[in-house]
Amino acid sequence: MTALSAEAAASFDALWSQISVIGRSSTGGYRRFAWTASDAAMREWFIGAARDRGLDVQTDRNGNLWAWWRPDAHGDERAFVTGSHLDSVPDGGAFDGPLGVIGALCAVDELKARGVRLRKPVAVTVFADEEGARFGLACVGSRLMTGGLEPDRARALTDEDGISLAAAMTSAGVDVAAIGRDDELLRCIELFVELHIEQGRALVDSDAAVGIGTGVWPHGRWRFSISGRADHAGTTQLDDRRDPMLCVGELVLEARRQAEQHGGLATVGRVVVEPNAVNGIPSRVSAWLDARAADQEALDRMLIGVAERVGRRASFEQVESVLTNESLTSATEFAPEVRHRMLTCLGADTPLLATGAGHDAAILASQVPTGMLFVRNAIGTSHSPEEFAERADCLAGVRALADLIEDWLRP
Amino acid sequence: MTALSAEAAASFDALWSQISVIGRSSTGGYRRFAWTASDAAMREWFIGAARDRGLDVQTDRNGNLWAWWRPDAHGDERAFVTGSHLDSVPDGGAFDGPLGVIGALCAVDELKARGVRLRKPVAVTVFADEEGARFGLACVGSRLMTGGLEPDRARALTDEDGISLAAAMTSAGVDVAAIGRDDELLRCIELFVELHIEQGRALVDSDAAVGIGTGVWPHGRWRFSISGRADHAGTTQLDDRRDPMLCVGELVLEARRQAEQHGGLATVGRVVVEPNAVNGIPSRVSAWLDARAADQEALDRMLIGVAERVGRRASFEQVESVLTNESLTSATEFAPEVRHRMLTCLGADTPLLATGAGHDAAILASQVPTGMLFVRNAIGTSHSPEEFAERADCLAGVRALADLIEDWLRP
Repeated sequence: MTALSAEAAASFDALWSQISVIGRSSTGGYRRFAWTASDAAMREWFIGAARDRGLDVQTDRNGNLWAWWRPDAHGDERAFVTGSHLDSVPDGGAFDGPLGVIGALCAVDELKARGVRLRKPVAVTVFADEEGARFGLACVGSRLMTGGLEPDRARALTDEDGISLAAAMTSAGVDVAAIGRDDELLRCIELFVELHIEQGRALVDSDAAVGIGTGVWPHGRWRFSISGRADHAGTTQLDDRRDPMLCVGELVLEARRQAEQHGGLATVGRVVVEPNAVNGIPSRVSAWLDARAADQEALDRMLIGVAERVGRRASFEQVESVLTNESLTSATEFAPEVRHRMLTCLGADTPLLATGAGHDAAILASQVPTGMLFVRNAIGTSHSPEEFAERADCLAGVRALADLIEDWLRP
Repeated sequence: MTALSAEAAASFDALWSQISVIGRSSTGGYRRFAWTASDAAMREWFIGAARDRGLDVQTDRNGNLWAWWRPDAHGDERAFVTGSHLDSVPDGGAFDGPLGVIGALCAVDELKARGVRLRKPVAVTVFADEEGARFGLACVGSRLMTGGLEPDRARALTDEDGISLAAAMTSAGVDVAAIGRDDELLRCIELFVELHIEQGRALVDSDAAVGIGTGVWPHGRWRFSISGRADHAGTTQLDDRRDPMLCVGELVLEARRQAEQHGGLATVGRVVVEPNAVNGIPSRVSAWLDARAADQEALDRMLIGVAERVGRRASFEQVESVLTNESLTSATEFAPEVRHRMLTCLGADTPLLATGAGHDAAILASQVPTGMLFVRNAIGTSHSPEEFAERADCLAGVRALADLIEDWLRP
């Protein structure tokens, strides 16, 4: 592995400081939701940073950004594409997404500093709406591009205020009539590699600052919409109640039991209560289950176990529970030949790790050879203001990415 | 019992229709929170309706409204006071509160139609902020007047937007420096009777349209503030999590078990999750327990049972759970001599009922002889858009109230 140049390290520091205040909330975390003002500010920042590097910036039909670095003379060679996303979850950390975008720009700087001859195009991408924090569906930009999401379904997604994704994208200048699978763009990609902060503790206790992704667990989101009957908390006898909250109690506890039993992960992170009054039985509660497991069968068994438990309590309480799958992503294995080449380039002792987290790379993997690089997370925490990676580890990630591109550019 | 005059019945219909659109939400229920625009509209309506009847309207030091009907020549006779409140819970019903105010105004019309000679003053009151939907504490107006709430504590209460009760009352023209126990006003009250819709099924299957309240169960509100650690739902192993939501699951299910065991009522009607993201472990969850029981010992045992269960899970999950009592109202028994006189006047077969719901009458009862009249609830549902009482039953309530006042005015 070559050492990282001073130029690329300086670029990293400069780019990082430029975005540190964009969309920051009082918690210290970030609220950069897709197609909002803070998201627009991030996108503007990216366009400026890419143009500063002489890259040709284009917005694709689905609102994803592409910054092209092309050889002076070139034919129809396909590109090494690298990038990530700039949106965040509510009060998300600084690294989830931006590290992969800044890392990609710095890798370009690094290759220039090394004087690498560009034989094929390199593109830096920013995929739109990866987290799904606003419209409820993750990886919308990459799903649309690969045809994994129907344009009609995407246009009809709405946020909490009832604003449709179609309206939000239109306001941002995207022609939503033209969204959908982009074969022309997919044909330009020879390889996609996403650099990302690791989101667990897989590297915390290892000597390695960087690991190679092997794949993504199957995972999905399910909404339990439970309708009861609003009533006075102080006068309605227990037998007369139709209290939907009791099903939420069952859901929360059973989800954890099922995850333990099947070695998976299950989380109830979002609950919306109506009317949410201290002295009133709720009329309706919606609760979301995020579930992940090492294989589809385990995931199915977890979900069935939770749904049965909630359903039984709903019957008993005479409330109506409707279960809706909002997203489901099958198990993804990144291309073995890409992983093999990454191991050869970065060292055979580089840790290999699977993750429960979804990524644009997992969406791209259905269409093009794909790999992922993970940078060690210092505390194992993500989707939190506390999320943190050491600067030295981030720079090691940039260096690994630059090494992979240089290796790929060799004749 | 005398029949209700056509004049009073016509008043009832007119007054009812005047307020039907004020503060109505899309659910069909009402959102008339204390010291908001819809609350102000209700208060303005009351002032107009009282003045139309020649009543002398005053706002007391605590923001409660008093409409006085005084004899032409009078000494220091104390008054028969009747009234209720005009604010609502979120998406509350039409009857809870307004029935007692409209009923009181109609009782005045009825007494005039009957040509009753006014030997002592009658006052119609509107107590401010009974539901506590906005500032979290119920019966603020009556608690302040009776000295049951410290002025400093009241002024410091805040709503969801961080607006203090002091600021909200000041905006509405109340001098918040002067709030607090009002001995002068309390001395003017000989008897307080509140007419209210019944909030359960105590009268549904009875032949009686009207019942007499015997007292209010001890009841309170407790907030569980549970702090964990925000983290990624897809990558944080179960053992590494500090997920506060698990305690909410325990709280919801244990509250119901304790209520069953002790013959009480327990409700978790309000839950606030931060950051409330589908794919994130919450950093913090606040959940409110409303608990009521026939006696204080049962209520204490229920709360201890719930708190122990939540506390054990909090220890196990390494999250911090802080329990705060937001309000606690001891058992109230309405004055037996008032109840006896009501039974004599309305008929010895009039049903007697205790309730789990708090009322301004229960606050007043600590200071002055107090009684309550309940109008049959057609479906047993309250704090809901569906809340309903038949017109004939409401008019029976007005007639009963007028009968009580007429009886009291006799020499």
